[in-house]
Amino acid sequence: MSSYSPIGPVVGIVGAGQLARMSQQPAIALGVELRVLANAPDESAARVIVDTRIGDYRDLADLRSFAKGCDAITFDHEHVPTEHIAALTAEGHAVHPGAEALVHAQDKAVMRERLTAIGAPCPAWRRVSSAEDVAAFAAEHGWPVVLKAVRGGYDGRGVWVCRTQEEAAEAFASGAPLMAEAFVPFERELAVLVARSPHGQGVSYPVVETVQRDGICVEVLAPAPGLDPEQAAEAQRVALQIANELGVTGLLAVEMFQTADGLVVNELAMRPHNSGHWTIEGATTSQFEQHLRAVLDLPLGSPSMTAPVVVMANLLGGDDPDLFSRYEHVMAHDPGIRLHFYGKQVRPGRKIGHVTALGADLETVRARARHAAVYLTTGEYT
Amino acid sequence: MSSYSPIGPVVGIVGAGQLARMSQQPAIALGVELRVLANAPDESAARVIVDTRIGDYRDLADLRSFAKGCDAITFDHEHVPTEHIAALTAEGHAVHPGAEALVHAQDKAVMRERLTAIGAPCPAWRRVSSAEDVAAFAAEHGWPVVLKAVRGGYDGRGVWVCRTQEEAAEAFASGAPLMAEAFVPFERELAVLVARSPHGQGVSYPVVETVQRDGICVEVLAPAPGLDPEQAAEAQRVALQIANELGVTGLLAVEMFQTADGLVVNELAMRPHNSGHWTIEGATTSQFEQHLRAVLDLPLGSPSMTAPVVVMANLLGGDDPDLFSRYEHVMAHDPGIRLHFYGKQVRPGRKIGHVTALGADLETVRARARHAAVYLTTGEYT
Repeated sequence: MSSYSPIGPVVGIVGAGQLARMSQQPAIALGVELRVLANAPDESAARVIVDTRIGDYRDLADLRSFAKGCDAITFDHEHVPTEHIAALTAEGHAVHPGAEALVHAQDKAVMRERLTAIGAPCPAWRRVSSAEDVAAFAAEHGWPVVLKAVRGGYDGRGVWVCRTQEEAAEAFASGAPLMAEAFVPFERELAVLVARSPHGQGVSYPVVETVQRDGICVEVLAPAPGLDPEQAAEAQRVALQIANELGVTGLLAVEMFQTADGLVVNELAMRPHNSGHWTIEGATTSQFEQHLRAVLDLPLGSPSMTAPVVVMANLLGGDDPDLFSRYEHVMAHDPGIRLHFYGKQVRPGRKIGHVTALGADLETVRARARHAAVYLTTGEYT
Repeated sequence: MSSYSPIGPVVGIVGAGQLARMSQQPAIALGVELRVLANAPDESAARVIVDTRIGDYRDLADLRSFAKGCDAITFDHEHVPTEHIAALTAEGHAVHPGAEALVHAQDKAVMRERLTAIGAPCPAWRRVSSAEDVAAFAAEHGWPVVLKAVRGGYDGRGVWVCRTQEEAAEAFASGAPLMAEAFVPFERELAVLVARSPHGQGVSYPVVETVQRDGICVEVLAPAPGLDPEQAAEAQRVALQIANELGVTGLLAVEMFQTADGLVVNELAMRPHNSGHWTIEGATTSQFEQHLRAVLDLPLGSPSMTAPVVVMANLLGGDDPDLFSRYEHVMAHDPGIRLHFYGKQVRPGRKIGHVTALGADLETVRARARHAAVYLTTGEYT
């Protein structure tokens, strides 16, 4: 807790992961003073934000105490109970996104209902309570069937691709409410990042291609290579429409499938998103700055790209906790590579950072990003 | 003081002004944990650096305590007594720049002696103890004579342009040791920013033009418009030579005069510099990141520009303390303008921030930067 008065607006972020951490960079520039609600003082964002409060994001009293004195409140993750968000807003706090919007990122069934109602492209879907329900769904829409936990999934968790009723039965073991979606045979995955302010101003970043491995994003290519300009514009239109219809304030990331029959919306997130880390160097206004502007109801910044091609590669922890000894090679090998570490202990498969390369030629830029990511996480020279 | 172990190198910065503040942005990205020695917890950098220690940079015991556990130590200002820096180095700390280099930024007479010895272009100069000394100097080199405090001057303080012996007599009133320099009739002022690592690697940024008003920098144009490429190369060569000969580690900013007869070195600074703030968005590697890499003896990053023209305008406090109400206009008027506030109380004439515009055309970019700077500090629409 600070012992002095803030100069400038105070924005509270619930959750102290790397998304809050990376929000501190533009906050420093804009003179916005961040406050973060953390589980522990050594978390990613707590290491770089002076006004760190330790508390439980599931406890309304902790949230109220945290919110007091903030000009706006926002989130590093989507696990804050929807009813608590609504309570804070009812008590006069400027929470962005609000509960009525955020519920569509927290509850996949609510999301599908709403998107279907507004005409956004969705796969066939249904709430399911048993493996028999799933089999009935498959009888209409075919196997495989994608089962998803209605609440709580991320980075591939809470998602089961089931080829048989027996596999479907395993997913119900957790007891969590599930929904079924028809499997989408996609050509590739895209993501559109938009921002919307309480004033109603909207901005869209270029559509990007995302590459997943084992359900986790490993690479992002900006702009999506070879994407038809009309399809890119349609993707941006759909994302802005969703933001507007749902009353999203702040960022909205829309993950989409590109299929032979057009675009299909996959997931929504209402916070800075992995598919937007490239914007730190690759766009005039980073997603983190854009989110701060939006939640403070300031005019949004230019989303234009700063280079023709930008590639981000995630750093997932390997077996070796020692990253810093590898900086020397990576920096010497590529004086233009941009490194980001999240101040998190290295654990296998954990998102511990990312690298970004910018340039004119996709293959070159992609190879640069990959080389750095592989070397930093494994020590291998590829 | 942090209650947890650092993940990554610890860099201590003595002094908690905006230069240390702006170092936190790349530190967050690189996973470098900053520690800052501040006079008070509400200083510019203390607001954004978790590990803030309160202490006196003139007290060796405070410095020793501060330095313990740092992988490298550097400075936000040049007022740390040279003998204390030498003591820390003798006691095994990695201090960059070291005392033997930094003394040339702290003592202008020592600087002139050394630059003259290595053949760097200097104006005629002499240590002076009285107005009579100054008159004798003027008899050889003409009036006006520039009198400078040998130690301690910055932002135009400790500099007197004297046209007569009577004016010179006023400068001696302070009692501080002075030196005289021949007045240089310059066409414009330039600045060259270089970095050098303990390994001996050197990098130079493009030469920029700086515009001063009342001794304070108000505007920086990158690259220096219309500068002959050979003269630009010569300026960079001189700066790198100075860094190498003086054993500078970290950044070195060399302020130069462009005259009809060639370049003349004006001042040196061994830290991030006002003439380099444009690099935050305008170069692949910002000066702040470059300084961190250098003091940690990591490979230096690319200094290449990210846009053809970059203009920075300083924000000097006006009479009105309210800046934030003016954000809306400035952001709406120019979605590409880049804003930087230093978390400092507004006081007339005080450096409270800067704005940066990037683009292709000098006049347009310059006008954008000026419009934002004037509006933010005065509320006037120009």
